[in-house]
Amino acid sequence: MTIDGLISEENMLLAEGPAISSRIRLARNIEQYSFPNWATKETKKEVWDLCIDAFTEMKETFVGVEMGTLSELDRDLLFEQHLISQELAGKDTGSGVFIAHNKTLTIMVNEEDHIRIQALHPGLDLKAAWKQADKLDDELEKRVTYAFSSKLGYLTSCPSNVGTGMRASVMLHLPGLVLMEEMEPVMNGISKIGLAVRGMWGEGTEAAGNMFQISNQITLGRSEKEIVEHLEQIVSELIEHEKNARERLLQDRTIIIKDQVARALGILSCARLITSSEALNFLSMLRLGYSLGVVKDFARNDLDKLFVAIQPAHLQKKRNKTMTSLDRDIFRADILRNFMDKNRLSEKNKLGIKNG
Amino acid sequence: MTIDGLISEENMLLAEGPAISSRIRLARNIEQYSFPNWATKETKKEVWDLCIDAFTEMKETFVGVEMGTLSELDRDLLFEQHLISQELAGKDTGSGVFIAHNKTLTIMVNEEDHIRIQALHPGLDLKAAWKQADKLDDELEKRVTYAFSSKLGYLTSCPSNVGTGMRASVMLHLPGLVLMEEMEPVMNGISKIGLAVRGMWGEGTEAAGNMFQISNQITLGRSEKEIVEHLEQIVSELIEHEKNARERLLQDRTIIIKDQVARALGILSCARLITSSEALNFLSMLRLGYSLGVVKDFARNDLDKLFVAIQPAHLQKKRNKTMTSLDRDIFRADILRNFMDKNRLSEKNKLGIKNG
Repeated sequence: MTIDGLISEENMLLAEGPAISSRIRLARNIEQYSFPNWATKETKKEVWDLCIDAFTEMKETFVGVEMGTLSELDRDLLFEQHLISQELAGKDTGSGVFIAHNKTLTIMVNEEDHIRIQALHPGLDLKAAWKQADKLDDELEKRVTYAFSSKLGYLTSCPSNVGTGMRASVMLHLPGLVLMEEMEPVMNGISKIGLAVRGMWGEGTEAAGNMFQISNQITLGRSEKEIVEHLEQIVSELIEHEKNARERLLQDRTIIIKDQVARALGILSCARLITSSEALNFLSMLRLGYSLGVVKDFARNDLDKLFVAIQPAHLQKKRNKTMTSLDRDIFRADILRNFMDKNRLSEKNKLGIKNG
Repeated sequence: MTIDGLISEENMLLAEGPAISSRIRLARNIEQYSFPNWATKETKKEVWDLCIDAFTEMKETFVGVEMGTLSELDRDLLFEQHLISQELAGKDTGSGVFIAHNKTLTIMVNEEDHIRIQALHPGLDLKAAWKQADKLDDELEKRVTYAFSSKLGYLTSCPSNVGTGMRASVMLHLPGLVLMEEMEPVMNGISKIGLAVRGMWGEGTEAAGNMFQISNQITLGRSEKEIVEHLEQIVSELIEHEKNARERLLQDRTIIIKDQVARALGILSCARLITSSEALNFLSMLRLGYSLGVVKDFARNDLDKLFVAIQPAHLQKKRNKTMTSLDRDIFRADILRNFMDKNRLSEKNKLGIKNG
C-alpha cells in the first residue's frame, strides 16, 4: 500500500448514532535513548531503524513512511484522516508513521515520544481498541526495551503521560446538546471529573460540525482497565443525554429543527462556495436530520465520509494540485452539490420533511 | 370597491431595474380649522365631512374609509401597501383615507395635516406622479379654502412641510451598492444635498431587502418643479451608480455573487420558517440575480409582489385570522416555497447558474 492508497475515501467516521469512533493511544519510549525533542538526528534515526526492524519481524504488514519523504500535502492528508497528529506532520527525517489493519492501527515514531501506538474503532468500543493496541504493545515489547519505572510506570516525554501512557478518547456527534444549549454545563461537568473535551481534530481545534472528542486527562495512579471503563461509562451517559436532547428537540422544537435541517439541505444543494467549517455544520445538521428521521433514503455512510473528504488536503489531493482557499471553497461546494444531486436529497426533501 | 378589494395582491412594486416607484405627497390644510393634532373631535368630523362632500362631487370614484371603522389588521394592511402612513393607521374616527385610480392616488384626511394627497407611479417618473397629485390638488382647491400665506406658501402642522408642502420620493432597490459596500458614502453625500434616505416603509424603518426611499427634505424656498427635477436628477445618477456596482459585482466577484443568489434560491426553496426581514433580503438577492441574468425564466412581477405579500398583515388577511409571529414565519416560508416550486427555480438554477 502506498500513501496514495491511504487516501481512499474510507475513514473511521462510519458509525450510526452519536458515538463516531473510539481511540486508544499508548505512549512508549525506548530505554537508553533521549526523548525525541532532545535527541540528535542520529539518535532519532537509530530509533526509527529499531522500529523498522521490529515491524518487519511481525506477522502483520505495516506500511511505514518517514515524514521527510512526504510532501506537505500528504502529511496534512494523514492528519485529516486522524492517522497522525499535527505535531508529527511538522516533523522530518527520523520521524514517521507505520500503518496497518485497514488504518485502524497506526504507530507514530519520534513524535513527542519514541512510540505512540494508536488503535481506532468505529462507534463506542474502547475495549476493542484497547485490546488491539495492547496486543501490538506486547509484540513491540518483545523486540525493544521500554523506558519503565516500577514506581511510576511508563516514562514519557511529557509528565502528563507518565504512568499508563494511555489516552483513551471517543469522538462524539452532539448536535442535540448544542442546539438545546446544554453543551456548556456538560463540558464543565466533564472537566471536573478529570476528562477533557476537544474539537474534531484534537487539541486547539474548534468543535466544528458539533463533533467533540472526550478523553481522559489522568494517566498516573489508575490502571488501563479503570481508565477505559470510566470513560466508557461517562460517554454512555453522555450519549443518553444526547439522545434525550434530540427527542426533546423533535418534540418541543419540531418546526425549528425541521427548518434547520431543510436549510442545510438547501444550502448544500445550492451554494457555489463554502468554507470547511460551514460545510461541517450543515453536514452535522443533515446527520442529525437523518437520525431524527426527518431526512431519509440516502447513504448515511457517504455523508459521514464527507466530513473528511471536504477537508483542504483531501480536496487538493483529489485535484492533484495546490489550491487557493477560494478555489477550495468552490471545489468543496461542487462536491457537496454533486452529493446532494446524486442522492436527490433536495427533491426527496419535499416529501421527506412534512410541515408542522 | 371594499377594503378587501384593496388587498388584491397588486401593488406598485412592479418596475424593472433599480427604481421601484416614484411618489409625490402634498400636505394641505383647510383655513379656519385647527390642525388635526390640536383639533377637537367635532372639528375633525367637520373636516372629514368637507372631504366626503368634495370627493363625492368629483368625476373620479373614490373609496373612502374612516380609520375607526377598520380593524387593526386592515389598517396594517393599508400601511404595508404604502397606501397610508403608520401615523394614520393609529388614528380613529374622523381620520381616514380616500383611494382612487387603481390605488395610484390616495388622500389621507386628518393625519398630521387635514389633507395629504399622495400619487404613486411605478419606476422613476416623479413628473407623472406630480401631474396627478397637482390635478387633484386643483380640483380640491375649487371646493375647500386652503390655509395659505402669500409669504410662506401652504401652511402645515409641522414647520418642515411649510412652503410647497411637497415631499417627492423614489423607492430604489440598491443591492449592488450595498454588496459593494458603497451605500454609506452615497448616503452621506445625499444627506449633504438636502435629501433624506429611509427604509422601505418610511421613517424609522430599516432598509430591509436593500430597498431605500430617497426624498427631499426642503419644502420652503423652492418651487415644486425645482424639487422634482432636482430629485429626479440625483436619483438618475444613483441608478447609474447602482448599475455600475452591479456590473462590477458580476465582473470582479462573479462566484461570490452567484453563490449569494444560489443560497437565496436554496433557502427560499427549503426553509420551513422565515422572518420578514430575512425573506426580504433573500428576495432582494433573487431580484438582483434576475437583473444580472444569473437567474432566468420566471415572472419577476410575481417576485416583486412577494415583497408586500409576505408582510405580517397580508399573511393574516390571507389566512383570515390573527397569527403569532411563529405561525406567520411558517406561513411565510410555505408561500415562498410554493413560489419557488411553481417557478421550478431550484431545478432551473442547476442550469441557470453556471460555475466559474
